[in-house]
Amino acid sequence: MIETNLTGLPLEKLDTPALLIDLDQFEQNLARMQHLIAGSHCRCRPHVKSHKSPIIAHLQVRHGAVGVCCAKVGEAEAMVAGGISDVHVTTPVSTPEKISRLVALARRADVSVVADHFDNVNALAEAASMSKISLKVLIEIDVGQQRCGLPPGAAAADLADRIANSRGLIFAGLQGYQGRLQAIVSFADRRREVERSLALLLETAEAVRNRGHPVEVLTGGGTGSSGIDIELGGLNELQPGSYVFMDSTYRRIEWEPGQASPFEPSLSILGSVVSRPSAERLVLDVGWKTASSDSGPPVAKTTGWSFEFAGDEHGILHRTGGLSLALGDKIELVPSHCDTTVNLYDWFFGIRNGRIETVWPIAARGRSQ
Amino acid sequence: MIETNLTGLPLEKLDTPALLIDLDQFEQNLARMQHLIAGSHCRCRPHVKSHKSPIIAHLQVRHGAVGVCCAKVGEAEAMVAGGISDVHVTTPVSTPEKISRLVALARRADVSVVADHFDNVNALAEAASMSKISLKVLIEIDVGQQRCGLPPGAAAADLADRIANSRGLIFAGLQGYQGRLQAIVSFADRRREVERSLALLLETAEAVRNRGHPVEVLTGGGTGSSGIDIELGGLNELQPGSYVFMDSTYRRIEWEPGQASPFEPSLSILGSVVSRPSAERLVLDVGWKTASSDSGPPVAKTTGWSFEFAGDEHGILHRTGGLSLALGDKIELVPSHCDTTVNLYDWFFGIRNGRIETVWPIAARGRSQ
Repeated sequence: MIETNLTGLPLEKLDTPALLIDLDQFEQNLARMQHLIAGSHCRCRPHVKSHKSPIIAHLQVRHGAVGVCCAKVGEAEAMVAGGISDVHVTTPVSTPEKISRLVALARRADVSVVADHFDNVNALAEAASMSKISLKVLIEIDVGQQRCGLPPGAAAADLADRIANSRGLIFAGLQGYQGRLQAIVSFADRRREVERSLALLLETAEAVRNRGHPVEVLTGGGTGSSGIDIELGGLNELQPGSYVFMDSTYRRIEWEPGQASPFEPSLSILGSVVSRPSAERLVLDVGWKTASSDSGPPVAKTTGWSFEFAGDEHGILHRTGGLSLALGDKIELVPSHCDTTVNLYDWFFGIRNGRIETVWPIAARGRSQ
Repeated sequence: MIETNLTGLPLEKLDTPALLIDLDQFEQNLARMQHLIAGSHCRCRPHVKSHKSPIIAHLQVRHGAVGVCCAKVGEAEAMVAGGISDVHVTTPVSTPEKISRLVALARRADVSVVADHFDNVNALAEAASMSKISLKVLIEIDVGQQRCGLPPGAAAADLADRIANSRGLIFAGLQGYQGRLQAIVSFADRRREVERSLALLLETAEAVRNRGHPVEVLTGGGTGSSGIDIELGGLNELQPGSYVFMDSTYRRIEWEPGQASPFEPSLSILGSVVSRPSAERLVLDVGWKTASSDSGPPVAKTTGWSFEFAGDEHGILHRTGGLSLALGDKIELVPSHCDTTVNLYDWFFGIRNGRIETVWPIAARGRSQ
């Protein structure tokens, strides 16, 4: 299907639709996150749900990451298979099949997982002790996401007791992630929400410590909150994911008062004009199967053209003042949501100076189990 | 990753998220389309973009299909690799790379493709004649979709001239597909739109015939219009795709005045309750990476529960009167759009009498090139 001997091919010869990484911009994003975190007391544990690639995870480790976060056991397996030795699973693992796989993985790597329920902790403990391994468990706290997690406060202390007293489990800390606030555009509004979430997590950590359990890890945060998380200093592990690629949604945020984000889009979808009903309305070979729509349509990088979805495999480019495009011309689109767009592809094409420099498999694509 | 020795496993033991086919319902849908078309003068050429599986394509052929439609060359390659010998590509193929692949495929199978532009016809002719093959080309007419296609009328006759006079190409007919009208709920409204589109196609066929070119194939239609297409009798090939699976969008249509669709959902997403913040609000392990959102959220099959997306890998089940669900319980969701949901998975699990009967690879998943 894919030729891996594409190195050196000029971008304009690459067939479409294809998912591109602008390597210069991507490397800048890696370096900027490293720089941002370097002066703080936080560790960086990037979330691989954004890229699903062990190769990129290794680059993140080379830029100071202590390990990675994974959304699913399948992602964690792909990372360990690719040589990453320290993985944290950020969602409760509750089916018996996945608990078995998680425990098996913990024989081969440093594995931690979150939990938010006594029954789940019991199941994890049974599997871990039967396998004679020690599994690190963090308690997930709902700091405003209204998704998984225990409410802030005393309930977590009870669950920490249970974890600490379970053979096979080690109580390792707390996780408080608030995804919704990551993309709040206004710095002031975002900062207020980050503070509010952090206060709930710190109050819970206090309750857990008062019960006699050290809270080694306080993990959370994302690309949008990372600057504020570092400034506030409450978390000691950060989970940014999107910063490596960014997207048209994330790039809109005000990083600091009046300042744009230091991270810029490195990911794009290359599409071709496959039909040209008029000079003002072109058909591109990019649709719902090659650009995720959960956060709206992707945005054309070529100025003066606006993209609209037109089905599974088609999009319409409307001319809004751009230079003329011919049948067969290729243009790039910036995804509206990098994570869900990456999950549609099997390969990244790394581009530098207009040529393919590298082709990276998206090893954990579709690994939602 | 996937064990293929899952045959006989009870559904409740299957890990999640997973994509299921209710085989009884699926087979009913196959039989009903065969029955619907059997009495007409139409041939059935189902669109595989909905299922991307050669195994299902073979079942369609066994139910009377003369071949299949594919959205992309990559889908056509997967079908031919899986033993399907007659493929029609329903979208213009315009990049040089794909034209080469299409021509190569035409050495191994009966291949047709649509075109809507002189430059594209020239490129197809050059590639076909250099390879000494004959490629069947249909002209795509824009009968209201406002996507690809020539406008109805004389322009198609000019392009038919060019195709007929090009070495390596055979002018084979016209395609007029109107995707937007397929899901119009009201029968009367849908019928009116189908008539309008058909009139444009027939008027164009007349213009082409008057130029001396026989129009062997008049292809178009989809699941939503198929009953009307057969009644009107203008097309001689139909392209239904979704009927095998259906989805929550398609099932809403009024098939005939006051009558529901004869096709019912056979596809579902199996998810597990992974967190249970309250009895009224549960977290399911199904999100944007396992259920497409372009046509809205999927719909819970369990009555009294309503699904809301909550991120890449999460959804919230809100209780609206349903029976209580516990942590680890599994429930099924009907996708809002089968085509784009199928494209997220690597495997179908065929279920009968509550057990896995078969596991089918989704061979053309992600084959958007």
